[in-house]
Amino acid sequence: MRVEIWSDIACPWCYVGKARFERALAAFPHRDGVEVVHRSFELDPGRAKGDTGLVLPMLMQKYGMSEEQAREGEKRLGENAAAEGLDYRTEGRDHGNTFDMHRLLHLAKEQGRQDELIGLLYRANFAEERSVFADDARVVELAVEAGLDEGEVRAVLADPERYADDVRADEREAAELGANGVPFFVLDRKYGISGAQPAEVFTQALEQAWGERAPLTTLASADGGDACGPDGCAVPQA
Amino acid sequence: MRVEIWSDIACPWCYVGKARFERALAAFPHRDGVEVVHRSFELDPGRAKGDTGLVLPMLMQKYGMSEEQAREGEKRLGENAAAEGLDYRTEGRDHGNTFDMHRLLHLAKEQGRQDELIGLLYRANFAEERSVFADDARVVELAVEAGLDEGEVRAVLADPERYADDVRADEREAAELGANGVPFFVLDRKYGISGAQPAEVFTQALEQAWGERAPLTTLASADGGDACGPDGCAVPQA
Repeated sequence: MRVEIWSDIACPWCYVGKARFERALAAFPHRDGVEVVHRSFELDPGRAKGDTGLVLPMLMQKYGMSEEQAREGEKRLGENAAAEGLDYRTEGRDHGNTFDMHRLLHLAKEQGRQDELIGLLYRANFAEERSVFADDARVVELAVEAGLDEGEVRAVLADPERYADDVRADEREAAELGANGVPFFVLDRKYGISGAQPAEVFTQALEQAWGERAPLTTLASADGGDACGPDGCAVPQA
Repeated sequence: MRVEIWSDIACPWCYVGKARFERALAAFPHRDGVEVVHRSFELDPGRAKGDTGLVLPMLMQKYGMSEEQAREGEKRLGENAAAEGLDYRTEGRDHGNTFDMHRLLHLAKEQGRQDELIGLLYRANFAEERSVFADDARVVELAVEAGLDEGEVRAVLADPERYADDVRADEREAAELGANGVPFFVLDRKYGISGAQPAEVFTQALEQAWGERAPLTTLASADGGDACGPDGCAVPQA
């Protein structure tokens, strides 16, 4: 079974939702039969790289919140994160463009290090003081910590087209699947779950999708299908 | 869309079938949306590592073929391979245990090099004089050529439990899906294709599975689903 998770590093509910999903998965009896893939989704794709700022003033300006509302929202997010055992800085956190981080997550996917890297990026963005948006230095450190080669990471960052199509393909696919926000979880391309649902919702979804793994329909042709089995290989006709 | 291919390095129809499938995939308009995963299947799991022999005598002993029948079968396989542009040695090829090669294919999968490694293993086994079964040296060379780290490859070969569960899980899954021979192709866990079918069968299957990618069923709870979108993040209630 395969679970795809569309998310953005800048999305606090993705950070919380991932932890809730993982809590459900850790208790799922068939967890070894579940493959998790992270897909790219940018909340603010139009923001230029390097155009960064603090989250609280952004919430006030962009969404017309009062300072009290913005602080209250961050405080509640922090409480939700804490309930999952996650650190969350409710003040001083910044925001910015995440396209390059998504490109690196595709590099990491090729090398089986995607889950490591996304976990480190979330933690760095939401729980640590040093910015992941101010320059590339922190992101390079995290990628190396996730097991990627520093030279390869720098080469990808230096070439804006590397993995750019993969990021855009993920985003196009999210739109096709009807996702207009994240996190967005898709189980075996059959069930979609929007948002940081309680772990119980993920547990039920895992059970349901697992139970409904459908038998295969066999496709074949009259004149083909030569195969090898325990009793040897088919010998084709002359 | 995802295509999983169960196969064994020692299976000539897998070598031919992979090429036929790839010919269909190369001409498929949505090929960039198709992910290919190779799964493990051993034709002769009981054979001890190091217990190797030539293919022609084995066909005669194990399957009771006459020498003429065995040679004729290999000749026809060679003709089928040649029709796909593949080299195939009809004489002098050996056989043996493939468990360690499957373990390395799982290591390669983690690093995004699985397709490279399986292609090199097939070519070495079916088209080149030097044995892939006689000792580990040739397999190590091929793994390094596929982009793996030599030290890591040797460490995996030296520890028989590394990736062993992954190989066995693939084989268990093949049985659950009803495969008793290889190659066995599975499209989106919906359609199964057994054997080295003509490329046209793969083309039709790709078109059919692509056209039937189903819309998602949304699962949700009444009290969850906080998400972030272009208009900001949901603020949870106190």
